[in-house]
Amino acid sequence: MGAKLKTALLGATGYSGLELTKILLRHPRLEKPILLRRGSDNGPSADLADVFPAISGNGGYPLRPLSWPGLKQQGVALLFLATPHEASRSLVPQAIAQGLRVIDLSGAWRLKQEQHRGIYNFQDPDAALAAQLTDRAVYGLPELHADRIAAAALVANPGCYATSVILALAPLLKAGVVDRSRGIISDSKSGVSGAGKEPTAQTHFVSVADNLSAYAVFNHRHLGEIVEQLALGPEELIFTPHLLPIPRGILSTIYLHLNRAMTPLEVESCFRNFYAGKRWMRIFQTPKLPQLQFSLQTNYCDLGFCLAADGRRLVLLSCIDNLLKGAAGQAVQNLNLMYGWGEEEGLL
Amino acid sequence: MGAKLKTALLGATGYSGLELTKILLRHPRLEKPILLRRGSDNGPSADLADVFPAISGNGGYPLRPLSWPGLKQQGVALLFLATPHEASRSLVPQAIAQGLRVIDLSGAWRLKQEQHRGIYNFQDPDAALAAQLTDRAVYGLPELHADRIAAAALVANPGCYATSVILALAPLLKAGVVDRSRGIISDSKSGVSGAGKEPTAQTHFVSVADNLSAYAVFNHRHLGEIVEQLALGPEELIFTPHLLPIPRGILSTIYLHLNRAMTPLEVESCFRNFYAGKRWMRIFQTPKLPQLQFSLQTNYCDLGFCLAADGRRLVLLSCIDNLLKGAAGQAVQNLNLMYGWGEEEGLL
Amino acid sequence: MGAKLKTALLGATGYSGLELTKILLRHPRLEKPILLRRGSDNGPSADLADVFPAISGNGGYPLRPLSWPGLKQQGVALLFLATPHEASRSLVPQAIAQGLRVIDLSGAWRLKQEQHRGIYNFQDPDAALAAQLTDRAVYGLPELHADRIAAAALVANPGCYATSVILALAPLLKAGVVDRSRGIISDSKSGVSGAGKEPTAQTHFVSVADNLSAYAVFNHRHLGEIVEQLALGPEELIFTPHLLPIPRGILSTIYLHLNRAMTPLEVESCFRNFYAGKRWMRIFQTPKLPQLQFSLQTNYCDLGFCLAADGRRLVLLSCIDNLLKGAAGQAVQNLNLMYGWGEEEGLL
Amino acid sequence: MGAKLKTALLGATGYSGLELTKILLRHPRLEKPILLRRGSDNGPSADLADVFPAISGNGGYPLRPLSWPGLKQQGVALLFLATPHEASRSLVPQAIAQGLRVIDLSGAWRLKQEQHRGIYNFQDPDAALAAQLTDRAVYGLPELHADRIAAAALVANPGCYATSVILALAPLLKAGVVDRSRGIISDSKSGVSGAGKEPTAQTHFVSVADNLSAYAVFNHRHLGEIVEQLALGPEELIFTPHLLPIPRGILSTIYLHLNRAMTPLEVESCFRNFYAGKRWMRIFQTPKLPQLQFSLQTNYCDLGFCLAADGRRLVLLSCIDNLLKGAAGQAVQNLNLMYGWGEEEGLL
Repeated sequence: MGAKLKTALLGATGYSGLELTKILLRHPRLEKPILLRRGSDNGPSADLADVFPAISGNGGYPLRPLSWPGLKQQGVALLFLATPHEASRSLVPQAIAQGLRVIDLSGAWRLKQEQHRGIYNFQDPDAALAAQLTDRAVYGLPELHADRIAAAALVANPGCYATSVILALAPLLKAGVVDRSRGIISDSKSGVSGAGKEPTAQTHFVSVADNLSAYAVFNHRHLGEIVEQLALGPEELIFTPHLLPIPRGILSTIYLHLNRAMTPLEVESCFRNFYAGKRWMRIFQTPKLPQLQFSLQTNYCDLGFCLAADGRRLVLLSCIDNLLKGAAGQAVQNLNLMYGWGEEEGLL
Repeated sequence: MGAKLKTALLGATGYSGLELTKILLRHPRLEKPILLRRGSDNGPSADLADVFPAISGNGGYPLRPLSWPGLKQQGVALLFLATPHEASRSLVPQAIAQGLRVIDLSGAWRLKQEQHRGIYNFQDPDAALAAQLTDRAVYGLPELHADRIAAAALVANPGCYATSVILALAPLLKAGVVDRSRGIISDSKSGVSGAGKEPTAQTHFVSVADNLSAYAVFNHRHLGEIVEQLALGPEELIFTPHLLPIPRGILSTIYLHLNRAMTPLEVESCFRNFYAGKRWMRIFQTPKLPQLQFSLQTNYCDLGFCLAADGRRLVLLSCIDNLLKGAAGQAVQNLNLMYGWGEEEGLL
Repeated sequence: MGAKLKTALLGATGYSGLELTKILLRHPRLEKPILLRRGSDNGPSADLADVFPAISGNGGYPLRPLSWPGLKQQGVALLFLATPHEASRSLVPQAIAQGLRVIDLSGAWRLKQEQHRGIYNFQDPDAALAAQLTDRAVYGLPELHADRIAAAALVANPGCYATSVILALAPLLKAGVVDRSRGIISDSKSGVSGAGKEPTAQTHFVSVADNLSAYAVFNHRHLGEIVEQLALGPEELIFTPHLLPIPRGILSTIYLHLNRAMTPLEVESCFRNFYAGKRWMRIFQTPKLPQLQFSLQTNYCDLGFCLAADGRRLVLLSCIDNLLKGAAGQAVQNLNLMYGWGEEEGLL
Repeated sequence: MGAKLKTALLGATGYSGLELTKILLRHPRLEKPILLRRGSDNGPSADLADVFPAISGNGGYPLRPLSWPGLKQQGVALLFLATPHEASRSLVPQAIAQGLRVIDLSGAWRLKQEQHRGIYNFQDPDAALAAQLTDRAVYGLPELHADRIAAAALVANPGCYATSVILALAPLLKAGVVDRSRGIISDSKSGVSGAGKEPTAQTHFVSVADNLSAYAVFNHRHLGEIVEQLALGPEELIFTPHLLPIPRGILSTIYLHLNRAMTPLEVESCFRNFYAGKRWMRIFQTPKLPQLQFSLQTNYCDLGFCLAADGRRLVLLSCIDNLLKGAAGQAVQNLNLMYGWGEEEGLL
């Protein structure tokens, strides 16, 4: 093993950023990551352990102001951004200009198609540069785009819901067995960490506990990246997110019609063939089904299914830990691909 | 107000039975109900407060052995059964023969059609009598069958999931605006009390907490009563139950296509017209949506919806407290109809 | 039953205020309460159902601006305040001057002794009037002060933690059997609604779920009212509050030494004698113990105990629903005493 | 690094056993552990992933029947027992006779003193041998007994509650600053996994959720090992366990009087000196306090405290993950000591 890679992370103070920090600290190929704070973060918390006392005990986690010359001087090769999408949109052009590779966990660079731009409504000062970077950015779903990720300067890490839905649907759509005219439905449920660390009326314990609620029906931002990645028309997929009374985890229950009667074995084979050799996919053999709990604290995406007796109506179940396979774990999986390391490095 | 009605309840030691006991105790038209235990319940718990200490404090809740002459002697007019369906199947013929009216909370008498009989696989000693009682039994969904319930000797109280799904779909199906050829999906989620009080690996706290899981996909028993009540073909509805990490409450997210483009106002009117004057239905005005929590500890069924921009794709949300509107509350609503009382008596 | 009493409530938009609203609405002796909002509450929510959709469905709950002449004109006799203590401190003198009786759920008027004033640090514009009202205010713990509450113009409704601790300790202290020199400890645990509806980092779901934490050790505000009511010296009681991952409920585990060896029966008799005829106290017979869950959704205070084999070391368990017996329910119990009604009216 | 150690584990199908399996699998000094099942475990589950689907995906986890010659043949050096205490009591003599070293997670070998024997009431076929093994067994609390653990043939891994209490009290008791005549109280709260995997009425989700309850007051089994390890008289400590509505984690709130006024800095120094160089202890600097959540999924024991203004009354807070530092993590910490490895190996 040669010299270790130097990385930096901006946004460690959020939930995904914390998980990412923990993984980077134990990753055998990396030096201890440089944790950055934005200029506006001039509060008293100069150490991540002040924000998250749970991580104290292994020495300090100083949060340093972001400085491009500083990063260069310290030999940083890759920058993780776990920042709001507006911040990522303005920081990425600068980072790329400095010669850094970037893995961005926000939604800023995921969407290619003009029709989805409105979802985020960016005000790019240099629109041409932003368009160029959008073209170069690789959607960081390792099971679909491993080769392009390996060569990317900018990886747009997928949304958590999008990860659970795309991974469930890609094999069947590629195999051409989905009756798209019947429509596809993803009824998705997520733990509260997916809503971020900001205290709001919606994230108050009393609002969430003993509850379940749907939100952003027909207009959640992740819908854009799902249909773009799966090459679906906007009306071919209904995506309904729900807020679960648990801290983390996503379960998507996905409904579709096959365009011909299939056997459970054929469906299972479709998944197994598509994901052959993929380290972080687990296909459950019918009648076993994944449960949300199984994938918690892991980087796995768990897939299972039930096929109706008619061989046509199919219910898929897809589970991930939204902070790992849905965010920080997937970011590290992308890192591993970008540097030619094993996909499981740092993630066991 | 004249003399109070005498009722008895067998099965108070289950979750629905406990809720029913609490309602019957405060119902202004009723004498204190007689709580019965089955012959096999010869354990030391001769008082319901020994089973549920939470209800102690207002005097005793003795559990007496079931005796038909005893019930007659005490002038009992109506018997509630909150028993397993096998027990209800064998007890109801006896109770009816004694001249009692019966509200049965189990699945024993809900299904009329031969094709659904296999769901429960009853071994009726007197098949002709069972068939006759099946014909006479009224499916106790007050919002659909108020007149027939009023005159019934035997009311089959609906299943909890079934209540949430049928009440959401009935108005649109009756209006003939559903494109049934596209199929209907109910992605339903229930709290753990719906699984009963028996300790099992599935109901262990550690199995349920921080989890969400689907079960009985394509073959849950409530599917039968839903399609029968809604006159749907067996392949027109997919029903997927999930186990939520909360004690009680059901939220069903239901997907369907309309057979013509409608406006949200038209959809809302369809619900409002169908449920005009119905005390226990709450229709949420778009874009407001019901949340599971809102209906807890109440007898309400809360309905809301999102209509896609195309005016065709419709997502319905239906919430109930599975132990109240989904069981004990609905039973008392049926009782009120059977005796001509206001539908809200005892339920506020 | 004569004419119904007219009441008003300021602060219905908080958790205690909501529970109080629900009780007042079903109280048989009351007209529908007038719900007030403060001048600063000029937001769009002119109806309580906009804040808490769970209560919609029985007509409107308009929130009207507070106006003293308006209250007089409508014949309001009693005002409930479920406001922050600073607001209560400034509003109560005005309300009393208008001839209204007041039940205040805040901490503004609970403390009599000079030494505890610092706890709240009020800036009274008319210090003499404030001191006079402090003297007149009756601490609204019905089991201790029923007679004085009946005659009071101003009732200071106790704190939730204080209710659970005082009710557990009062009988033994009055009987003179506590070895106060050994010190008393109350290790108290509360659900999150006790922390109020304000979204904060501490009340974020992810901070509370799968957690337990102690806070305000040695300096929680309720300590003042506990020692004042029990006539304890400040060092005779340690009170440690903890935040539980549940929405509501308090369990206090209280440790003390008896000054002579007693039998369990003697201890139980001490409680039973002290609380003879008290409608809302439940004494558990050893070895049965109350659990937090038993008192939820009720106005009960549940007491139980374990006595060591030495007959000296005693562990008390005291459970209440913090929003009912710890706030809104107790306020209505006080109302009932103030008007000579049964203590259970509106609370069953 | 030389050849890897061969270990076996009986009891992987319990909660502690599962956690232990996961740690052993990633421990860099160990071969893949041999998972054993008892003769009575002749069910269909021949693979641990059938019992815990969450761990599937990395190949099989076959459960093999226990055979002493088989273990010898495979070169197993150390056996972990995560079995009920009766089973451990009968198996350990056999394992020791085979020349195996043993780490036993049950309570079978923790207690030395005759007076505590009654707690478990063992029926030893060879009482002399059992007594001899009891003498040889080392109580496996690494922070107290590192040297003796290193040399032990049989390590009795501490109870989860006991770990949290002993580690909090040992430094102060050793320093002689505790006024033992005033008594010590540990008010301890544990997640449900501490109650084991057996489904019971007590572990049913509906019984635990929205609840908190005390149990086994004055007579929990762990009381024996706490007083024995801390050399306390049986009446010097009150230990009250409570069941928390969370899957895992313990928080003990401990109350004691110091025999002289101390400063917070002195108290903190007492902890820091005692635990200098101890990898898995985190001392929180006042006024910071540990929360249960901080230690979850780690092997840390977190300690914090609040000292009253009088410098005498002290409240300690001690948090652990009951399945890690309270069971499986501590077992591996002991393993590391027994083979001279770093205390953090396999535990990061």
